[in-house]
Amino acid sequence: MELRENKIKELENKMKNHLDDLTKPKGSLGKLEDIALKLSLIKEEVPPIIRKKAHFIFVGDHGVVEEGVSLYPQEVTAQMVYNFLNGGAAINVFARYYNYDLFCVDAGVNKKFEDNIKNRKDFFDMKVNYGTRNFYKEKAMSDEEYQKAYSYGKELANFVLEKGYDLVSLGDMGIGNTTVASAILVAHGFNPEDIIDKGTGIDDDMLKHKKEIIIKSVEKHKPYKDSKDILIKVGGYEFVIIKSFVENLKNKKVAIISDGFPITAALYSVYADDNSMKDILFAGHLSKVKGHKVVLDKMGLEPIVNLQMRLGEGTGAVIGGSIVELSSKMASEMATFSGAKVSKSIKDEKNY
Amino acid sequence: MELRENKIKELENKMKNHLDDLTKPKGSLGKLEDIALKLSLIKEEVPPIIRKKAHFIFVGDHGVVEEGVSLYPQEVTAQMVYNFLNGGAAINVFARYYNYDLFCVDAGVNKKFEDNIKNRKDFFDMKVNYGTRNFYKEKAMSDEEYQKAYSYGKELANFVLEKGYDLVSLGDMGIGNTTVASAILVAHGFNPEDIIDKGTGIDDDMLKHKKEIIIKSVEKHKPYKDSKDILIKVGGYEFVIIKSFVENLKNKKVAIISDGFPITAALYSVYADDNSMKDILFAGHLSKVKGHKVVLDKMGLEPIVNLQMRLGEGTGAVIGGSIVELSSKMASEMATFSGAKVSKSIKDEKNY
Repeated sequence: MELRENKIKELENKMKNHLDDLTKPKGSLGKLEDIALKLSLIKEEVPPIIRKKAHFIFVGDHGVVEEGVSLYPQEVTAQMVYNFLNGGAAINVFARYYNYDLFCVDAGVNKKFEDNIKNRKDFFDMKVNYGTRNFYKEKAMSDEEYQKAYSYGKELANFVLEKGYDLVSLGDMGIGNTTVASAILVAHGFNPEDIIDKGTGIDDDMLKHKKEIIIKSVEKHKPYKDSKDILIKVGGYEFVIIKSFVENLKNKKVAIISDGFPITAALYSVYADDNSMKDILFAGHLSKVKGHKVVLDKMGLEPIVNLQMRLGEGTGAVIGGSIVELSSKMASEMATFSGAKVSKSIKDEKNY
Repeated sequence: MELRENKIKELENKMKNHLDDLTKPKGSLGKLEDIALKLSLIKEEVPPIIRKKAHFIFVGDHGVVEEGVSLYPQEVTAQMVYNFLNGGAAINVFARYYNYDLFCVDAGVNKKFEDNIKNRKDFFDMKVNYGTRNFYKEKAMSDEEYQKAYSYGKELANFVLEKGYDLVSLGDMGIGNTTVASAILVAHGFNPEDIIDKGTGIDDDMLKHKKEIIIKSVEKHKPYKDSKDILIKVGGYEFVIIKSFVENLKNKKVAIISDGFPITAALYSVYADDNSMKDILFAGHLSKVKGHKVVLDKMGLEPIVNLQMRLGEGTGAVIGGSIVELSSKMASEMATFSGAKVSKSIKDEKNY
């Protein structure tokens, strides 16, 4: 343990010196320098290099939609899977623009997909079941289902490591998943008032109903032993897969980029068990969903951009991830004062 | 005039309908949708397409550095030109990453560059003189010099149009240029206390001195007839070239991306003469330099990202510009509800 801490300290000093040797006034690249420093500790190299980026969209259905917490029919979840696979969703455009390999993970969509879809290289059939059970009435999943989902997450982490991806961003899609994310966070002790948001399409009456369903569901399943217990009772399969995925990428030199509210709730389930996990996480963006900032603050993560988006799919994650990659380019491609013929004086902190 | 207004109104409605037909909840891409809408009015097309991006770094020297307003020797300006041309500066890395063609404009560097540099295709020799005169003592430039700089800006605008660039981002480099930018803004009526910043390397005594030089210089040359008069008396050649460049790109279907404090001061000289110029401008980022927000607010421009940077060179402009380009990809490459088989219900505003 102490050995590792010494190694980290050494890396940190080396990277700070490297950043100050780049041909720019000290600290003038602000957050990009902070990001590059964190990245060098994750990648355990100075300067840190991003070699291959992957984006995963986790798609799942949720039994609790029976309670009318969403204005939209469950079919939309499966329809969006086809949209992802046809390349027409926002995340497809964003991932192409920023040069990510894009993968779609069926983490329990309520639809039997055709074989030609299941055989695609960019599709992971990790369907634990055709949606979770309605947690307003019963546990969302069984222990066995949790285990199955958890083993899928590990499988996915192995895929990432085998393929050599070192920047992984996360996205979500699934009707009802903000309700599930809220329930997980309330079960973890967050104040429902801080967490449960109206969304734009829902009116005051519907928000009241949604809030009631979440609070009553969380009450019903008390007490909670741990974050696993929370996910079994009021979670969703994709939340378990993400938890396992990220836990199995710890100390593997992979940077993880979060997206909005549902992904951040999944990551909170990781953080709650091991606070040090935040050292491999970057918050890609700040979502317009009100609870998002509260959870990021609790984890001590500062969002990279704020574009007032609330789409999900990982649209914010891939933008933030590209800025993480930019920081690695900055650190690895800029000339150094020791190499370039630029007067040392520029090296001090200054707006020149 | 009315014809043009009707055309704009028609474009605006068409673009709004198009954005709402994309397979995402209405408005869920937040600022990206606002950016795409503004871009469609600039490009006069639905959806708007960015075909070719160019970044220009305007480099100039300033006589006022004689007064000791900067901690750094004037040679650094010319040294940085070599760094730009060797590809080792931050802006080179950023422009490569986001795929901009990068050009360096000698707008009055105090150094005679070699012929092999002047002949480069990515270098514009627009040297009006070897730096401006010290405006603490006399006018920064003559009327003839202003005219010469202004004609250079027009030449550069023609280059952009000939080459078919439709997104142009602006950057600056030059020891002392924040002092010049401050003087221009104070002459325009901004409060020195809101505008003049310490920078990181300058201590309280030096800030006091810098402020005194700026205020006294602005006082000395009063009254000011117009923004041209301000630029002649307390401006710099690159500020004039930028003003002319941007003015000559109005209604030419080119989007302009601003950077930090000096570029924004140059753009304020444009805005002061014609408020409608802000319709072709995007504020790429919010700089850490304190006066930046004040000027952007005055022009009604909202910065796209805030990464606490204060480097200049256009590092913030190219990041913001890439998000403008992303918004055009979003608008042109996403599937539509009318085309894709996604339930109409998703079309209403909602966090699904």
